[in-house]
This record gives sequence, C-alpha cells and structure tokens, in this order.
Amino acid sequence: MPSLSYDLLLQSITPVDRSREAALRSRVDGKAKPVGSLGRLEDLAVQLGLIWQPAPPRTGRAAVFMFAGDHGIAAENVSPFPASVTALMVAACLNGTAGINLLAQAAGAEVVVVDAGVNGDLPPHPELINCKIRHGSRNSVVEPALTLAEARQAITVAAEMVRRAIDDGLDIVAIGEVGISNTTAAALLAHRLGPAPLADCVGPGTGLDAAGVAHKLAVAGRAAARSAATAPLDVLAEFGGYEIAMMCGAILGAASKRRPVMIDGFIAGSAALVAIRLVPAVRDYCVFSHRSAERGHGQMLRSLDAEPYLDLGLRLGEGTGAVLAVPLVRAAAGILNGMADLADVLTASEAAS
Amino acid sequence: MPSLSYDLLLQSITPVDRSREAALRSRVDGKAKPVGSLGRLEDLAVQLGLIWQPAPPRTGRAAVFMFAGDHGIAAENVSPFPASVTALMVAACLNGTAGINLLAQAAGAEVVVVDAGVNGDLPPHPELINCKIRHGSRNSVVEPALTLAEARQAITVAAEMVRRAIDDGLDIVAIGEVGISNTTAAALLAHRLGPAPLADCVGPGTGLDAAGVAHKLAVAGRAAARSAATAPLDVLAEFGGYEIAMMCGAILGAASKRRPVMIDGFIAGSAALVAIRLVPAVRDYCVFSHRSAERGHGQMLRSLDAEPYLDLGLRLGEGTGAVLAVPLVRAAAGILNGMADLADVLTASEAAS
Repeated sequence: MPSLSYDLLLQSITPVDRSREAALRSRVDGKAKPVGSLGRLEDLAVQLGLIWQPAPPRTGRAAVFMFAGDHGIAAENVSPFPASVTALMVAACLNGTAGINLLAQAAGAEVVVVDAGVNGDLPPHPELINCKIRHGSRNSVVEPALTLAEARQAITVAAEMVRRAIDDGLDIVAIGEVGISNTTAAALLAHRLGPAPLADCVGPGTGLDAAGVAHKLAVAGRAAARSAATAPLDVLAEFGGYEIAMMCGAILGAASKRRPVMIDGFIAGSAALVAIRLVPAVRDYCVFSHRSAERGHGQMLRSLDAEPYLDLGLRLGEGTGAVLAVPLVRAAAGILNGMADLADVLTASEAAS
Repeated sequence: MPSLSYDLLLQSITPVDRSREAALRSRVDGKAKPVGSLGRLEDLAVQLGLIWQPAPPRTGRAAVFMFAGDHGIAAENVSPFPASVTALMVAACLNGTAGINLLAQAAGAEVVVVDAGVNGDLPPHPELINCKIRHGSRNSVVEPALTLAEARQAITVAAEMVRRAIDDGLDIVAIGEVGISNTTAAALLAHRLGPAPLADCVGPGTGLDAAGVAHKLAVAGRAAARSAATAPLDVLAEFGGYEIAMMCGAILGAASKRRPVMIDGFIAGSAALVAIRLVPAVRDYCVFSHRSAERGHGQMLRSLDAEPYLDLGLRLGEGTGAVLAVPLVRAAAGILNGMADLADVLTASEAAS
C-alpha cells in the first residue's frame, strides 16, 4: 500500500455521519438502566458508534505511540531539566520502566516508542522506531523550529505508521510524547492557533518556579514576536517540535482510518489543535482523555471545546493520561455492544410470569 | 477456617501503619518523573503501599460483589421503577448483559452476584450466590427494616465470602448493588450517620421528578422520625436493606484481610459509612471510586472526608463506578512496583557517557 501524500491524507478525512446520532442516542437511552445514568460514558458510546458506524465499535487492541523529540528552544533555559533527559526517558520507556509502560500495562495497551527528533544518537533497540528527522528542532526564538518540508514529512510518516497499525488490527490509537522544553512549543501553538493570550498558555511545565515561568513567558514572547504565522502548518513549523508534528500526523492517520484517537494532555493537545485546525472533521475522532495540571491546558481545552473524562492532576506526558482513559473507551463500547435493552429485560419478566 | 463472629470481625481490623507513609511518599517522589506529576495516582500508590506493606501491592485479580435486595419502603412509592425490577436486573447480571457485566469486563474484573434479600424466588443459576436473608426488608416507615440479628448475619456472611475470595487470591475487592428504592435507605443512613440534614441526602434516584423527590423526602422523614437510633449497627437495622448490610460486611471483610475495597457511589457509600462508623480504621482500605450524580453523594463524601477519583455523572449503581476505577488502582500499583527511580535513570546516563 503506497503511503498517502500530505495533501491526500488531509483530503481523506471525512466527518462522521451526524444523521445517525439520534438513532445511536436512542439505542443508548433504551439500554437496561435509567436514562442518562451512565453519564458521560453514554456520550462516549455515541461517539464510538458514530466513528464505527455501521459496524459495532471494536476496542480490543489499543496502543500508545510515544513520540520523542528535542527542542532548540531548550537553549533558552525554559525547563528545570536538561535536554539530555529526553534521551534518558526514551531509554527508560524501551526497558519498560517509564511511567507510560506501567500505566499502559494497567490499561491493556501496547507502547510504541518513536524517535521523532531526539538530539543524540540513541542506541539501537529492537523496539525503537527510528523516524528521527533531525537532532532536535531549531530554536524558535531565532528561526523556524522546523522547515515546512520537515513538518509535512513528520506528519505523513507518523500518519502512515498509525494507518498501517490500524490495518494490522489496532482499534484504539493513543498518543503521547517526551521532549524537554516542549511545553514552551505547545504554549506557542495554543497561543497562535487557539488563539489565546500567550500568558494564559505558559505554565511551570515539569516544575519551574514563578521566576522560571516569567522567564519562559518572556522567551516564548520573543519567539511569538518573530513570526506572524497563523496558518496551521506554518504555525507548527514555526514553533512546534518533531514529536508534536508526528503526534499531529498520528491523529490525522487515525481519523483517516476512522478510529478513535486518545489525546493525552497539554502537548498532545497542541498537536490535536494543529490537526483540527488543518481538518476540522478530525475533532469527531478525538477522545480528550484528561485535564492536565499544566496551566495552559484549561485554555487549550476551551479552544477545542473539549471536556476531558479524567481530572487527576497528571502532568507527566508520555501518553499517561491517554492510556488511563482507554478502559473508559472499552466500557463505553461495551454499553453499546453488549448491554441488554430495558424493553427486553421487562419482556423477559412478562414471559416468565 | 471457621468464620469470624461479628465481634471478632470488627476486632480483627487494624489501621495501616502510618509510620511508613513518609518513606512510601519518598519512594513515589523519587520515581522517574517530575515530583507530583502523576497527581492523585501518587496518593493512591501510597495508600496501596500502606495497605500491603511490607509486601508490594498486588492488583492482578479484581472482583465486584454485586449484592441485590428489595426494600419494604418501596411500598411508599419512592422510586419510579416497580420493585420487581430488582429481580429482573439480577437476571440480566447473571446472563452477562447488565451494565456491570460490560464495565467489569472492560476493567478486567470478575462479577459475583449475590442475592442478599430479593423479594421473590430467583430461578437457580450456577453463578448466583444465594444468601437471601428475607424476601425484602421491612418498611422502615413503620418498623425496623432489619432485625439486629439479621444485620449482624448479613455482615458476617458477606465478610466471610470476601475473606474466602481473598484467601483464594483476590487482590482488589469492589462492591455494588441493585435494589429498587435503596437510595431512600441510603439517604436515611447518610442523614443519621453523617450526620447531615435529611433534605441534603434525598435525591431523584433512578429518575424522580421534583414532586417525586418531595414525596420521597416526606416518606424518609417519617422513617427518620420513627427511630432516634445513632449507633451504627442500630441505624443500619432501622433503615438499611440487606444488600447494604452485606456491602458493609464485604467492606469489613476486605479491611480485615488488608485489601483495598473499591466503593461505588451513593448506596455503596452508605455501606462504607456504616462500616467506618463501626470501625474507623476501615477508612484506610477504602478507595472511593467516583462521584455519583445522585444528589446526596456530595454530602456523604464530605461526611467521609473522601474525594473520589472519577466524576463522570454516573448514577447506575451495580458497582459500575467501582470497576471503572479498578484500572487506576492497577496503574497506581504499577508506579510503586515497576517504575524506575529518577536517580537510576540519571546514573545510567553517566555510565553510558
């Protein structure tokens, strides 16, 4: 199967058929329970039904794609961690001891580790997918972080990876990332594409103090002042990182194959923002998993008109929040696929009496 | 193994050893992540560590015990559903098509269906555990719902069931219920044991309108006025149902064997309230899974000083909210048991460079 070009990828995404929504809602309402008593799981069941129609939703196989990339803007000291930690966390993911490994295991999801643009040569590992585009992005304070060609390449490569996984039987796509300084990149994307005031988008990330946040905001302000780009791909290239571009591609790939895609927190949300601004129909396939503790996420969620399912104060990234919500997707599909209708339960009673 | 008497059961429950809490918190803080970045999962990890110490928490096998019972107070028309629905929902649970079956499957939990006091003879089924104490409780508006002997019997029977399951390898206990009109019983328990104003405890249940809620409050008020009981077992007998008493026993059984017990919503919460008022140390073993949409649950959670993990607008019961949170417990244990220490990740770097 030849891979889709960037343009064809975007054109291949179509919205769900909303004309089926009322019928799906009726089906959920008719299940053996008081109407509405499964709360937000019912909305999720309807979304899954719309995504999969006319087939019943499948949720057996889930995988989180964890994209890793470094950021040129790390040179401006916008994170309490040195950039070398990105590679170390990739190594931890590969030996199964990072947070995402344990949380994915608890949720019944596979972990796929992708080098999107780590600054350094990672030792080869049988489970590391090497899609490295460059040894880290450029410093967006002084120049575009990515070239437009790189942004398109990152998107198409990741979309193809996810599309093939779906062809091989993947039912639920989840995305996450690791990349020191990437909350700064995500804040710039949220600011420009939300749009939203930059000050509402910049927060402590992995743990800056107030002075650190003020410095980060000043740095992000210099980057924002450098480019007036507003078109989604341009904004992604100006400010984004390789892992953000690849998450954007993974989301587009999932939507093009009509599969739900679990969006993690603030950084993954910025990738979803790019994808949705590129193709608004992508929104139909996104499941916003959790509300991050990172300051800008609330603003970003408002830009996306999204209300996440979990609110546990997570701010780790890696896809941890995305996989935590995978069991909710399985539960919602179970309601639609397997739960008895109230009418049948009551009829069984009449037959028995 | 002889079963524990009621008194010995209560005496067998001891608090967790809080002197280990700081060390567990340090272990979680030292994991390969920014401090605090796994949010409330970190608190859950510490709780599990305290429960299991000195052993690492195990979370492989989970089961939800779904206790069914009818309520004499149903004669006062406090529910939009007829009492006969209790038996029908038990049948649906047994054939695997009730909400709890699908949600438990999604969460990787077994379902154990127990007849605690359904009004009617359920057809025998290989998976139905018959612990029926009576064909429904008495109408608490006119007399105590249970005798004290029945309340003790329900508690000890359910505790023994859970204790044996734990001896057979169960790691996580979850509890739920079905019982038409049991929000009225739970409201009375929350009112008397919270304590809290009755009006704050009575809500629409499975779907009463405002007039229905006003009638339900008046009925509950008549029941409350009949007895001034305040001792936990007395209050349980005065107002509770058999399924509530058995949930209380299941919680006590789990605590006596030092296992976490997932508390579902409003009704299961009322059983937890009784158990905790009987033995305050029980609180250490309770995991409050979700915030129910039922009106009185917020008040009840304040009485319990509990902040649940999920807030999805559920109000179905059956243990649905409890099983939805089981993957969170597995994730939290994974953090404690399997996640690398940050120091080791950084040391690996120095060794490699």
